[in-house]
Amino acid sequence: MSADIPAQTSHEEDAKPQPEYVEHITKKSDDFNQWYVDVVRKAELADYTPVKGCMVIRPYGFALWEHIRDALDDMIKATGHQNMYFPLFIPESYMLKEAEHVAGFAPEVAWVTRGGNAELEEPLAVRPTSEAIIGPLYKKWIRSHRDLPVLVNQWANVVRWEMRTRLFLRTTEFLWQEGHTFHETSEEAAEEVEKMLECYRVLAEEWCAVPVLRGRKTRAETFAGADYSLSTEALMSDGKALQIGTSHHLGQNFTRAAEITFADRENTRQFPYGTSWGLSTRVIGGIIMAHGDEAGLVLPPRVAPIQVVVVPIYRGDEQRETVMAAVEGMRAAIGDTVRLHVDDRDEKPGYKYNDWELRGVPLRVELGPRDIEAGNAVVVDRLDRSKTEVPIAELSARLPVMLNAFQTRLYDRALEIRQSYTVDVVSRADLDAAFVGGKNSLAHGPWCGDAACEAEIKDATRGVTIRTIGDGLVPDGTGCAGCGRPAQNMVYWARAY
Amino acid sequence: MSADIPAQTSHEEDAKPQPEYVEHITKKSDDFNQWYVDVVRKAELADYTPVKGCMVIRPYGFALWEHIRDALDDMIKATGHQNMYFPLFIPESYMLKEAEHVAGFAPEVAWVTRGGNAELEEPLAVRPTSEAIIGPLYKKWIRSHRDLPVLVNQWANVVRWEMRTRLFLRTTEFLWQEGHTFHETSEEAAEEVEKMLECYRVLAEEWCAVPVLRGRKTRAETFAGADYSLSTEALMSDGKALQIGTSHHLGQNFTRAAEITFADRENTRQFPYGTSWGLSTRVIGGIIMAHGDEAGLVLPPRVAPIQVVVVPIYRGDEQRETVMAAVEGMRAAIGDTVRLHVDDRDEKPGYKYNDWELRGVPLRVELGPRDIEAGNAVVVDRLDRSKTEVPIAELSARLPVMLNAFQTRLYDRALEIRQSYTVDVVSRADLDAAFVGGKNSLAHGPWCGDAACEAEIKDATRGVTIRTIGDGLVPDGTGCAGCGRPAQNMVYWARAY
Repeated sequence: MSADIPAQTSHEEDAKPQPEYVEHITKKSDDFNQWYVDVVRKAELADYTPVKGCMVIRPYGFALWEHIRDALDDMIKATGHQNMYFPLFIPESYMLKEAEHVAGFAPEVAWVTRGGNAELEEPLAVRPTSEAIIGPLYKKWIRSHRDLPVLVNQWANVVRWEMRTRLFLRTTEFLWQEGHTFHETSEEAAEEVEKMLECYRVLAEEWCAVPVLRGRKTRAETFAGADYSLSTEALMSDGKALQIGTSHHLGQNFTRAAEITFADRENTRQFPYGTSWGLSTRVIGGIIMAHGDEAGLVLPPRVAPIQVVVVPIYRGDEQRETVMAAVEGMRAAIGDTVRLHVDDRDEKPGYKYNDWELRGVPLRVELGPRDIEAGNAVVVDRLDRSKTEVPIAELSARLPVMLNAFQTRLYDRALEIRQSYTVDVVSRADLDAAFVGGKNSLAHGPWCGDAACEAEIKDATRGVTIRTIGDGLVPDGTGCAGCGRPAQNMVYWARAY
Repeated sequence: MSADIPAQTSHEEDAKPQPEYVEHITKKSDDFNQWYVDVVRKAELADYTPVKGCMVIRPYGFALWEHIRDALDDMIKATGHQNMYFPLFIPESYMLKEAEHVAGFAPEVAWVTRGGNAELEEPLAVRPTSEAIIGPLYKKWIRSHRDLPVLVNQWANVVRWEMRTRLFLRTTEFLWQEGHTFHETSEEAAEEVEKMLECYRVLAEEWCAVPVLRGRKTRAETFAGADYSLSTEALMSDGKALQIGTSHHLGQNFTRAAEITFADRENTRQFPYGTSWGLSTRVIGGIIMAHGDEAGLVLPPRVAPIQVVVVPIYRGDEQRETVMAAVEGMRAAIGDTVRLHVDDRDEKPGYKYNDWELRGVPLRVELGPRDIEAGNAVVVDRLDRSKTEVPIAELSARLPVMLNAFQTRLYDRALEIRQSYTVDVVSRADLDAAFVGGKNSLAHGPWCGDAACEAEIKDATRGVTIRTIGDGLVPDGTGCAGCGRPAQNMVYWARAY
């Protein structure tokens, strides 16, 4: 610590304006997109690379991904799925088998045409998703209804050639899990699709503190080759929507294309029904944009790499010894119950406060010699910057409780943000008003179900799309908010990432 | 269960010859290579795919990999490293920067030349390893000695174009971890290289029950671009060696090529010293070949996906109810202390015994109505097929102890196998005799240090190479076992995978 900081006044440091620490992040209220890029890079979650469209995920960002991945992996296994690993490359002829699929993905595929200094006879697609290679493999392994259901998942990198990229949200390569299942009946596949969507909802809401809408995608937004797609949709703090996870009922489309059949219980050959479902590193973008503020990231405790950061405050070696002894005692008492980091860098406390606020650590514990004398530590909340004096001896019991409360408050705040953008629309005037002049809203209203109406709205509003279709039908006589013709379903419109 | 199996005689089933169950695995003693492929495929660890040289890792094989990966990941983190993720693609110009590196890897690279329907201006290598992309990234991030050491790791897929592939051992795509570090001094890098080699030794010996030799590689076997390479070398049960993990001191070769510099403590610009170290899915091949026998796999308990399989034995619904109630009681008592699987398939017990022996499950618990009356279960050992009666109430306490003992015995047996192949060689006659007519040995003897001698032996013996160089020097006057000239080091020669 620098000598010009008097000990024990530094709890107040973060209350002062400190332009030297925060000027490097663009103001969120000025330019949301630049704020996003600044936060991702300055918090060292990820960065650009010399490889077009590809990012590097830095240790802090990767640790966040590890917590998300482990939580989801547990759910995937608890629902009876097993992990495996499929090849990165898919021969061109396999990519071509399912017509809609290839039409959807062809423009996004990276092709390997040379290997070991020789031209390949057949180009290999770098997988944009793995349906096209999984079918041919399971053709060998599925013979009878006793081989069903097949319930598998892989954690992998995939590549989709992108022109306009954005860290985490849209990159040429990204990390994800893709689940793939085969079932005897369409109903069983439909249940699977719902079950995995529910895992994504739990991950988003209970782990990432991001409230989501669950529902079906319109035909225009359906996965290429699927009968239908479900998704979880979140609303970011700028009012734009982000799809978090998707779950697809593939019908018999891919099994027919790959000629997978099984002998059913009546010993008749049938094509099994498939599903696939995926969630990617994109969810990190969702966490940033749902919760972040002018000071940077705000991370949900359950997935935060560091849940509590301890900033020791001292002046000179003698104080240092006293304070660090207390810090080590605290650390030993807390043990593994909390992911705790002690920041003993040779920097001013104020610098550290800003640094960890930028990195979104939920709680900060400040501990100086006078605190130790009084037997208290100061706990500072990242969300509202409130300060709580907590007896040092009670920290190990109190911190987990405070973190749980933080998780709930963060979810509640995100829900409030979403509610603040939500408007009911019953007419075209309502719909236009919701998005006038580039305004963002989450517009809830009746829709006719016609793709032409959907496209017309998208065009007229410069990009507003139907994010999700609700389950219930609308009362007879209700008119579509887009075109006035008879409506079929309640839907949500928004601009989307 | 089929009605023709009398209850309680089935403990004896596996003692009978059962050609119908085991004929599908080639005898290990007849054809080791075909036995290996049969075991990998029939135990459903992995399989071939329509993609040349690429394998699919099936759920049982992937669960094995997950246990290995988690054990190593814990060690990597405990030694202060953080995980991150680098791009899959490396632009050609970056691959070309380190001359030795590109010369070593160029023949093995797969190239992406087309993306999104357009020819790329610059081909992208699919990473064969990541040094060439990591350098340019850390050029931005390393400024001063305060930024050092950098200690990072990634778990990833890599691609090396291979002409002759073999499941797990040599495939075009494989999974691995690659650690990358940067240090202020060469000495610190040297310590790092040793430290990570020690993690590989612990993983091989204490987790996989595979004894390994630690040592330095000859120049001919050194990683392309490294100052020197260390490795852990195991001996398979056919007498051939397998490299398990490698750890490279990269000197300043890659940092110079990438122009990474830091201001040292005297404020002079220096190139940092690099290391890299990796361990891949190849280790699974090592487990199979070190421990497997005529009945199939034998898995080390610490990494086995299933440590104990329970085969309930019953006849008719009434017995079934009694037995399954006892099995469920046992399962509840055992809880999470053991990875246990109950095989309640509608198959004969003998079929199940063979199936789980093929899959290498360390312990099998057989439980029938008479066992339950007597309060005992029969525990069958995969290694020596010994049977132990264990009171059902004691299983939860005894099984972990038996698994620990199994782990030790498996290691000891692998060590005995290695010792049975080990010969001391002091002359060329000894060396030739050790490998005459395709014979496999692990020959330990003095070597002159001359690459020409090494190459001549390799040529004359059709492939015997120096696997590892020991630390100690040899006494003055000792002659090289290869060429008779003054020897420098004790080395191990063997044929290798």
